[in-house]
Formats: sequence, C-alpha cells, structure tokens
Amino acid sequence: MAAASGKNCSVGHSLGRGMPNSSAQPSRCLRCLFFLSALHRFARHLMKVQAAQPIRVHLPTVVVVGVGLIGGSVGLAVRSRMLSGRVIGVGRSSASLAEAKGCGVVTETSTDLSRAAAEADIVVVATGVAAIPELLEQIDKAVRPGTLITDAGSTKASIVAAWEKRRRWRRGRFVGGHPIAGSHRRGPSAAAADLFTGRVTVVTPSKNTPAADAEEVGGFWASLGSTVFMMTPREHDSMLAATSHAPHVLAAAIAAATPPESRQLTAGGWRDTTRIAAGDPDLWADILLDNVAAVAKALSRIAGNAEKILEALEKNDRKKLVSLLKRAKEDRDAVGS
Amino acid sequence: MAAASGKNCSVGHSLGRGMPNSSAQPSRCLRCLFFLSALHRFARHLMKVQAAQPIRVHLPTVVVVGVGLIGGSVGLAVRSRMLSGRVIGVGRSSASLAEAKGCGVVTETSTDLSRAAAEADIVVVATGVAAIPELLEQIDKAVRPGTLITDAGSTKASIVAAWEKRRRWRRGRFVGGHPIAGSHRRGPSAAAADLFTGRVTVVTPSKNTPAADAEEVGGFWASLGSTVFMMTPREHDSMLAATSHAPHVLAAAIAAATPPESRQLTAGGWRDTTRIAAGDPDLWADILLDNVAAVAKALSRIAGNAEKILEALEKNDRKKLVSLLKRAKEDRDAVGS
Repeated sequence: MAAASGKNCSVGHSLGRGMPNSSAQPSRCLRCLFFLSALHRFARHLMKVQAAQPIRVHLPTVVVVGVGLIGGSVGLAVRSRMLSGRVIGVGRSSASLAEAKGCGVVTETSTDLSRAAAEADIVVVATGVAAIPELLEQIDKAVRPGTLITDAGSTKASIVAAWEKRRRWRRGRFVGGHPIAGSHRRGPSAAAADLFTGRVTVVTPSKNTPAADAEEVGGFWASLGSTVFMMTPREHDSMLAATSHAPHVLAAAIAAATPPESRQLTAGGWRDTTRIAAGDPDLWADILLDNVAAVAKALSRIAGNAEKILEALEKNDRKKLVSLLKRAKEDRDAVGS
Repeated sequence: MAAASGKNCSVGHSLGRGMPNSSAQPSRCLRCLFFLSALHRFARHLMKVQAAQPIRVHLPTVVVVGVGLIGGSVGLAVRSRMLSGRVIGVGRSSASLAEAKGCGVVTETSTDLSRAAAEADIVVVATGVAAIPELLEQIDKAVRPGTLITDAGSTKASIVAAWEKRRRWRRGRFVGGHPIAGSHRRGPSAAAADLFTGRVTVVTPSKNTPAADAEEVGGFWASLGSTVFMMTPREHDSMLAATSHAPHVLAAAIAAATPPESRQLTAGGWRDTTRIAAGDPDLWADILLDNVAAVAKALSRIAGNAEKILEALEKNDRKKLVSLLKRAKEDRDAVGS
C-alpha cells in the first residue's frame, strides 16, 4: 500500500510504489529498492495512507454504467456534491433505468453505452465484476481521448490486467477503484448520497498507470466523500480475500451447515455471522472466481486458526484456548463495531 | 425435541421423549419406540413445538444468582410482569450487586448464597457455565424441599448430568434452561425487562425429570415472555454447537486471520461476521470446553461445506459454485434478518 504521492526520492526515483510518473520506468537500483521496500513495510505497518485530494473541477457529464446500489449512490453523491449536473445512467433494463431516474439518482438514462460514453468526462462502471472487462473495451472504443474511466468492482487484478494488455492503444485513462461500502439492500432505491462518506475506496493503479491518472481517479472518489487508499491490484485482491471474500465463503458454509430444525435456536450471533451469505449468489460467484488463489490462501489461514482452537479444546487446554480467544477479541475490538 | 406434554400414548407409555412421568420408566417396546422415533422426526421436521404455558402463580421470592445481563433481565422481567415483588440478587462482588440494585433489576442483594436460597421459591442461576454445577450443589443444600431451580447456562449436558448424579438425594427440583437471548452489552445496566420477549428459551429435562417440574420451569421462562422449547440436554448442546458455538470459533478464527494492515479495508460484512469474536474469552472458553464433541462435529460439517465451495472455485465450476451459494442463501433467508 502506498500513499497517493507522486514525489520523487533524493536519488531521482519515483517513491509512489506501483505508480511511477508516466515518464519514468521503475528503478532497479538495489539501494533504492531496499529503501522502497523498507518504506513500504513501514507504511503497511502504520497504515498511514495519504488520501487523494478531492478534485476541484466540475465534470460536465458523468456516465454511470449499472444503476444499482453503488452506481446509484455515485450518481446521487455526484449530484448532491455539485460535481456535475448531468449524470447519465446506462443499463440494459429499461425498468431499472426508469426506477433510477425516478429515484433521482441519474438525470438521464440510456441503453446505448457507446453513445453515452462518447459524451462522458468520466465513466464509472458499477456492474458485477464479470462484466467489467468487456464493458471497458466498449467504453474505450467510444470515449473521447483522455476521458477518465474507473470502476467499482470487488476484485481488481484481472480487470486491471485486461485493461493493461492493450494500454498502448487506449483512448481512455482507466484506473480501477473499489469503494468498500455496501448494504444488504440492493437497487437504485437503496442508493444514498452519503454511501461513500467516511468509507474507504481503494484505487489500484498498475505499474504503468501515470501518477496523474491515479491522482485524478483517486480525487474523484475522494470527492464523493471516500478516504482513498492506493495499492496495487494484487495487494487489493489479497487484502479483500481476507476481509471479505473468505469470510463470505465461511458465512455461506455456516448457513448451509445449520440443520433446519435448529433454525429456531439461532440468535443474534448466528444472524450476524451468516448475514453476508444472503448476498446475490451470481455476483458473489463471479467475485470469488476472480480471486481464487487469494481466497484459498485466506481460507487456509482461517482454517489454521480454527484448528488451533479445536486442538486446545480437544486437549482441554483452557489456558491456550483463552489466549487464542483473547487474541481474536483484540483483533476484533481493533476494528470497532 | 418434544412438546412439553405429559400425555400418555394408547399403549400406556409416555409420549414426552426424555420427559416420562416420574412414575414411569421409558418403554423399551419396539413398536412404541418406532412410533416415538417417527413422531420425534416429524416434530423435528416441523419444529412444531408446544410452548409451555406461563405460570399463573405469584412467586413470593425469586433469587437470581449472577446479576449480569441475563440475571438482571430475569429480575427486571419478573418485577415488570408482577410475578414477584421480591427479587434477591446474589453475587460475589458488592460493587456489581450495588449496581444491580441501583438499576432496579433486583430489590435486595446478598453475597450469602445459602441464606438467600433458603428464602427462595425459585432460584435462577445466571452465571458462566463453569460455575453452575458447584453453585447448584450449594443451592440444593440450602433450599426448602421442593424449591424450583433453573439456570441460564449456554450448555446443558454436563450441568444436567452433574445434578442428576445425586437426584435421589436432592431437596430442590432443578430443570436446566437456556434463554437464547443476548446482547454484546454486558452487566446489569444492559439488562432489559423484554430481553426474553419473543425469544426462545430451551428447557432441558433429563429422562428422570418429573413432567410437572419441566412444565413448571418451562412455565416460569414462558412467563418472562419466552417461547419455550423442550429437548434433551444433548439435543440442546448439539443444536447450539451448530447455531452458536462453532460459529463463534470461526468468527474468532476469521478475526485473528485478518492482517492488521487490512483492517481499514473491512466493511459491514467483516464486522458482522466477526462480531461475536468480541465476546468474553473466559466465558466462551468454558462454553466451548463444555461441548467439545458437538463443536468438533459442527466445525467439521462447516469445513466440509467450505471445502465444497473451494473445490468448485478451484475447478472453475461456476454452476456448482452458484448452486452452493444459492443453497446457503436459502438457508440464511429462512431465518430472516
């Protein structure tokens, strides 16, 4: 994880890990690499991440592809913060577009992605992750050169990699994003202008992303109220495997392992622990399938912890058990309610 | 699980599984066993459980041992429902007893368990599970013959077994209970008169418990607003392993497996899934240690489900993955938010 800073170190190399200036290739100097690595470890340790500055320019036209909870909230936030007066919502279903317009989350709607993208100053793709790479291709063919593009997908490595493959021929300037905000509610009617306020959005430049592009996209998400963290797509996917994807697998496993006759004996604990298992199976299948290795690694770490607890239980080792539960409680308490 | 009924079947054997009348030993007649087993499966399938009827008598003196969230709420519920005007709170710490009296959850306090128990019409033990068997011994030595005793422990088999060992010499009439109600808040200040309203309390007679005792204790918990389910202590522990104890282990395992640098990337999903890991490590160690076999079994069932999901992921089998997540969603949706 690195600060959204484009400053250069004293030996002239870019400090922004994964985000060198477009003109500079990453340094291979050993001393510098050592310094960068130590700095990176230090930054990770402290989680001291400099937020991108909110943009100050007005965006005449914002295009939001997918007008569900996230896309709808982008529209509302853009409008309520006066970043743009014109938000075009793009979708396949006329019904959901009409609902989005009815809710006031967009000012116009369209089922013609290319036509809408051609008018955009920034395009935000807020669909399920599986659809994003193909949508980015279509959008890139249609946008005016230099148009900013970002997304809100829950995985980043494969989406960014798909974009990067043809970086040389791109018209738009894409930088991946992931607002870590959600709700169990869905659809444009659940959208909220303050959904991103005080929440984190991860922005994931690749090693070839110009720092200015990362800063502009980071600035856009910061303008919606987010605290913006920059990291590589792989770092993002690895962290999200631990904080979201593997917990989802286990919530589903717990829900499905509970015998129907025990359901009436569930209380708040079970309901909390399994809540995310009620998420959309299709959306989640695509997220998990796009992050298999990291999810497997996170699951194995969790299984290792569960095995330690079970071992203490089976050995009747109360001291060890209390110490394991205490550590977990400290880790949980560190996040807050 | 069986209805709180003491009716006899046409061939003269007790229908109340695990709760024969005190005068009748469980039948070994094969036809009857088959019938009972089918009835039992049917009852489990439907979860059609007859609630115990609330008691209608006034209890001059209620003694609550342990004046935390549960004990305090028993005191408040008893008082607000006019079941008793005198609630003696017993504890070791004068400070917590003073707090309990200050909150109005009890009318009197005492650090002398035997003296308080001697005045009780019903004693409710609401301490951590590890302390309960020894407290029951002390209480039984002090109560007037025939006094009702119940508890609120999260495990039942070992507590009931400890009581049953000396059933023949008992003065009191103990039937185990477990109100499945809680809060992340603790202590008497978190107590609420309606904590049990609309919640389930499991009452766990042993095979030697007179039906009348089970009904009276069930009636007491029903009078506090609970829906009362009757089942054997082992059934209770097995079900609670699935709905509470194994999820607790996994919540702790997830919390402890989340790298500190990822904490800022957690959202509502992680917080929900790990919330119970913030529970008291000492209390939970005792609960888990008292239900090791059932917890291990429930964990193994959950691990099996997680492995199926991981296998589908690693085989890139989207169809299978969606079907597993759909099943989990159905199981989760069946319980509600």
